[in-house]
Amino acid sequence: METASFRIMLDTFWVLLTGFLVFFMNLGFAMVESGLCRVKNTVNILAKNFIVFAVSSLAYYLLGFGLMYGNGGGLLGLQGLLAVSGADNSPATGEAYRGAYAALSWTGVPLWAKFFFQLVFCGTAATIVSGAVAERIKFVTFIVFSFLICTILYPVTGHWIWGGGWLAGLGMFDFAGSTVVHSVGGWAALAGILLLGPRLGKYKPDGVPKPIYGHNLSLATLGVFVLWFGWFGFNPGSTMAVNAPAIAHIAVTTNMAAAAATATATLTAWLLLGKPDLSMILNGALAGLVAVTAGCAYVSIPAALATGAVAGGLVVFAVLAFDRLKLDDPVGALSVHLVNGVFGTLAVGLFADKRVAVAIGTDSPGLRDGLFAGGGLAQLGAQALGVVSVAAFTLGLGLLAWFLLKLVLGLRVSRSEELTGLDLGEHGMEAYSGFQTFTNM
Amino acid sequence: METASFRIMLDTFWVLLTGFLVFFMNLGFAMVESGLCRVKNTVNILAKNFIVFAVSSLAYYLLGFGLMYGNGGGLLGLQGLLAVSGADNSPATGEAYRGAYAALSWTGVPLWAKFFFQLVFCGTAATIVSGAVAERIKFVTFIVFSFLICTILYPVTGHWIWGGGWLAGLGMFDFAGSTVVHSVGGWAALAGILLLGPRLGKYKPDGVPKPIYGHNLSLATLGVFVLWFGWFGFNPGSTMAVNAPAIAHIAVTTNMAAAAATATATLTAWLLLGKPDLSMILNGALAGLVAVTAGCAYVSIPAALATGAVAGGLVVFAVLAFDRLKLDDPVGALSVHLVNGVFGTLAVGLFADKRVAVAIGTDSPGLRDGLFAGGGLAQLGAQALGVVSVAAFTLGLGLLAWFLLKLVLGLRVSRSEELTGLDLGEHGMEAYSGFQTFTNM
Amino acid sequence: METASFRIMLDTFWVLLTGFLVFFMNLGFAMVESGLCRVKNTVNILAKNFIVFAVSSLAYYLLGFGLMYGNGGGLLGLQGLLAVSGADNSPATGEAYRGAYAALSWTGVPLWAKFFFQLVFCGTAATIVSGAVAERIKFVTFIVFSFLICTILYPVTGHWIWGGGWLAGLGMFDFAGSTVVHSVGGWAALAGILLLGPRLGKYKPDGVPKPIYGHNLSLATLGVFVLWFGWFGFNPGSTMAVNAPAIAHIAVTTNMAAAAATATATLTAWLLLGKPDLSMILNGALAGLVAVTAGCAYVSIPAALATGAVAGGLVVFAVLAFDRLKLDDPVGALSVHLVNGVFGTLAVGLFADKRVAVAIGTDSPGLRDGLFAGGGLAQLGAQALGVVSVAAFTLGLGLLAWFLLKLVLGLRVSRSEELTGLDLGEHGMEAYSGFQTFTNM
Repeated sequence: METASFRIMLDTFWVLLTGFLVFFMNLGFAMVESGLCRVKNTVNILAKNFIVFAVSSLAYYLLGFGLMYGNGGGLLGLQGLLAVSGADNSPATGEAYRGAYAALSWTGVPLWAKFFFQLVFCGTAATIVSGAVAERIKFVTFIVFSFLICTILYPVTGHWIWGGGWLAGLGMFDFAGSTVVHSVGGWAALAGILLLGPRLGKYKPDGVPKPIYGHNLSLATLGVFVLWFGWFGFNPGSTMAVNAPAIAHIAVTTNMAAAAATATATLTAWLLLGKPDLSMILNGALAGLVAVTAGCAYVSIPAALATGAVAGGLVVFAVLAFDRLKLDDPVGALSVHLVNGVFGTLAVGLFADKRVAVAIGTDSPGLRDGLFAGGGLAQLGAQALGVVSVAAFTLGLGLLAWFLLKLVLGLRVSRSEELTGLDLGEHGMEAYSGFQTFTNM
Repeated sequence: METASFRIMLDTFWVLLTGFLVFFMNLGFAMVESGLCRVKNTVNILAKNFIVFAVSSLAYYLLGFGLMYGNGGGLLGLQGLLAVSGADNSPATGEAYRGAYAALSWTGVPLWAKFFFQLVFCGTAATIVSGAVAERIKFVTFIVFSFLICTILYPVTGHWIWGGGWLAGLGMFDFAGSTVVHSVGGWAALAGILLLGPRLGKYKPDGVPKPIYGHNLSLATLGVFVLWFGWFGFNPGSTMAVNAPAIAHIAVTTNMAAAAATATATLTAWLLLGKPDLSMILNGALAGLVAVTAGCAYVSIPAALATGAVAGGLVVFAVLAFDRLKLDDPVGALSVHLVNGVFGTLAVGLFADKRVAVAIGTDSPGLRDGLFAGGGLAQLGAQALGVVSVAAFTLGLGLLAWFLLKLVLGLRVSRSEELTGLDLGEHGMEAYSGFQTFTNM
Repeated sequence: METASFRIMLDTFWVLLTGFLVFFMNLGFAMVESGLCRVKNTVNILAKNFIVFAVSSLAYYLLGFGLMYGNGGGLLGLQGLLAVSGADNSPATGEAYRGAYAALSWTGVPLWAKFFFQLVFCGTAATIVSGAVAERIKFVTFIVFSFLICTILYPVTGHWIWGGGWLAGLGMFDFAGSTVVHSVGGWAALAGILLLGPRLGKYKPDGVPKPIYGHNLSLATLGVFVLWFGWFGFNPGSTMAVNAPAIAHIAVTTNMAAAAATATATLTAWLLLGKPDLSMILNGALAGLVAVTAGCAYVSIPAALATGAVAGGLVVFAVLAFDRLKLDDPVGALSVHLVNGVFGTLAVGLFADKRVAVAIGTDSPGLRDGLFAGGGLAQLGAQALGVVSVAAFTLGLGLLAWFLLKLVLGLRVSRSEELTGLDLGEHGMEAYSGFQTFTNM
């Protein structure tokens, strides 16, 4: 057997395995989101978080993958659009790539391995929305929106940055998706929150926010551990190849950013709120993971620690700020995925270090030398342009999508269903039959 | 280092890793089954699902593996029976296989890797029984039955199909075990249900079934996510070698079948029951996974979608049908594993496509061209023969085993213990100390 | 691409992947420990178990790794101490190792892969303490102690055995850390228990222990499944290279010890306590895993079964004994990690078999022939010396550390906080908002 085919075997194993870990993050999201909401809405959140990956699979297969990675212009994929039906000769042992998905030709694994890995990322963007709109959205409306995000919203900006589109051409870098995945999910979620409004009872008549406590912090903690675990697929896996120095380095930048963010979120919450709030500790870890995702392959370990440390503080302030802005986000999805997705994307402009990237083999032409190396502002500018253009597209089209759904299907369950809980209203069942729960919450 | 030893290293890593994922499915089963049963029986179900893998490990080591894979006739393994003590020269670098387990000589990994991977499959068959007989079976009786299924019931039919026995010789195909694992577990469970009878209170005096709700749908959902995750070990791992096109293809057929089944189960439940019942959604995903297991390496992606779509509808009808037939299966194990194990095995006859198998390197002589390719009914016949003969053996011997256990140990806890709950009766403890629960359920 | 670099790629993938599994054990510990404690202390235990890995990451990066693996004398690492800043040329393709961490030069993976894998082991030692001191320790004190164990306590004795120190020189063997990880965690925990004293209400006025029941055995069971799964990273991964016969053998010794221990713990509890207590079954599995950790790469499968069988009985007796000794250990951490860490380390002296080690490539000069092969008492002596010296150092310095923390920060929450629960006292929140719980427990 030749060298080339060993490389393909090894890389395919790696891409699938890390993809499995990213798939597993669906469990993490389901547990974090249901754990941070109320007993009476648990079945509904679980059902949303479960079905969203099924919908993502169908939608990304039918259209999303082609739109994102099909050969085309700077704005959209145009070849191999439907049902991953474009020509493809991967794994292309020793010959040039001749196929419809040239933007993924840099990895030599079979097309279905590429599809699977990209699918689980698409699923992540879709599931981020779920927590932000929880405890009030209609089940059917959420399903349709999930279909739309996976067929259109996610693939289009994904094409711009990862599919060989115009932002990639300008030298914007987002290694594993602080923007492509996390802030896209965040902007789509913000659009939903703007049209949905806050949960009943979240604000007192005088506008002061009232805390609404999560019903199961054991599951929320479990969820964050699963997400941290899955992130070892998300970030190192985004090499889509076993590059030994790179995957080892990325595992450590990812982990250290999460650790630093956990520490600073704990401290910030302790100082600001008087006690170390567990939900802040957990969201701190997630914030560090989101923030380091864009730069994990380009920054040094100390820079990863710095990125995480900032993210951990930022998420606590963001949670408090959104609460005051009356943007009611039951699980802190905006603070984690949107705010830190944006911050992490910009942090590439601050911390990316060409010497690191060269050492581990993740350098590309156009990568700036990084602040430590005395580079200029060009990279930061490219990053900011990416942030702004993705924001404009996703928030704009997201608002339109939610608005049309409001007209056609309705966004929000009835007042009485919201008070009773969506579990009985949408699903006719309770999550914890046999337990005595408080019904006036 | 030579090429051959690299291949062995890579394949051993793959076989172990996917085996770890299949092991992890024990957690999935434990959470699904306890989540779908009542508070008062939680400790008992957890204990059963935990100890069953320990018993499987001991039983399959002592006798099961030898009976299944030892060289022998078409009916049973006869060499290397006890404690995996047969001669073996794997990994057989460059030389021919000379050993007692020739049916596994097609994979070049060390014997203990083969054993481990096969063990976790045996454990899956055993744990399927647990949910079906839940909430009324005696703990000790279940342990002894688990020992019997792993030493005799599972290995014998496994020998017929995977161990070089008579069904393999007739060209029956079951890539990862829709029949070998899932329907064997299902038939053994059905035998138990027939002898145990329904739970107290499941049927009203007029024979109408009463719904008995699960106590923890968060854990049930968690369990299904874990099972879906583990299935990426179950199906792609059954290559027992890193064949890049095959493992990528199988990961996608597996995933798409699960996604399609989730969608159709949701729709079917919504139409039939008026609301999208979460336990139906979850069982839908499992049904798709079980059904595609036999054919995942032989069918196209659209055929996998079709398989899943049928499975998702089938499971909902099956749950309702078993309920009416007074076959009381608290977690839907028959509908998932038996019905869809049978359907998936037959679906190989409908959908197996020699062009797919050739393209990804999973073709074998005897594989039919598939319905799409205009093949005949021979493959379907071989599949049906496999289904019927496994049914006859497992149901027959299963009934005998349960019957003897009834005589010797008793099958069912006392009426008062069943009413109070098996947690206090069998284990003297409660699962959720400190929580207020309803005791009249 | 050359052979050497394929080996590095494959080994790096393996080391990272198994490291991810060991990281995941943090979830296992969090669920076991919170599940076995009371509702009112759940948030606190979750917060401790979550933040301890963040603290471990920072502490081991800042100092621990250098102290453990830096070149130096027999007692301590002296080079590359701070922030993993020593010179290093791994992966050293074809050239000799020239760097500051020579004790890890036997594995060819990049330095960050080595660091990551060692970090997750350090995190395990730290998190063991958490359960033993649960339900009464101050949050801030636990955080500071975690920092100390990862910077000093764990790395120093780790250097003795794994870092090329004096015990390694004497031929003491501890393949994956029965002593280095588990009994170090256990001794540090014992020191804490001695200074903290038992929980309020644990002993009646006449000194008889009162059972305090765990609040969530579903989560405890989930946790043990996760730990068993993670152990497939812990033990086979400790090869830090894809040695096919070794990793397959170790996966099976690990699994069979756990299975045997589960069986004997169940039986022992059934005989001694009258019923098969689930927490004993679960701790039985863990005991077998801890015990086989030292010898998994040196013993035959029957010897692994024997090791596990003893461990499973031992843990039940140990739990009862510690209870009577008024060493109040809410989760059984001493019985699992300390008692079986010691037993497993000594069992290497009884069961290590040079023929096994030669066959799978894990032999080293100095490894005795094993009892089965008629070897002498030298190996047992080396193992016992390791146990005693680690005990003296860790218990001694642990007592000093806890004592100083008592003076500076205080060890224990106030009496009223302990009665109300640490969740409200330390974190101002409840774990299960919306559920009705008993407050007088």
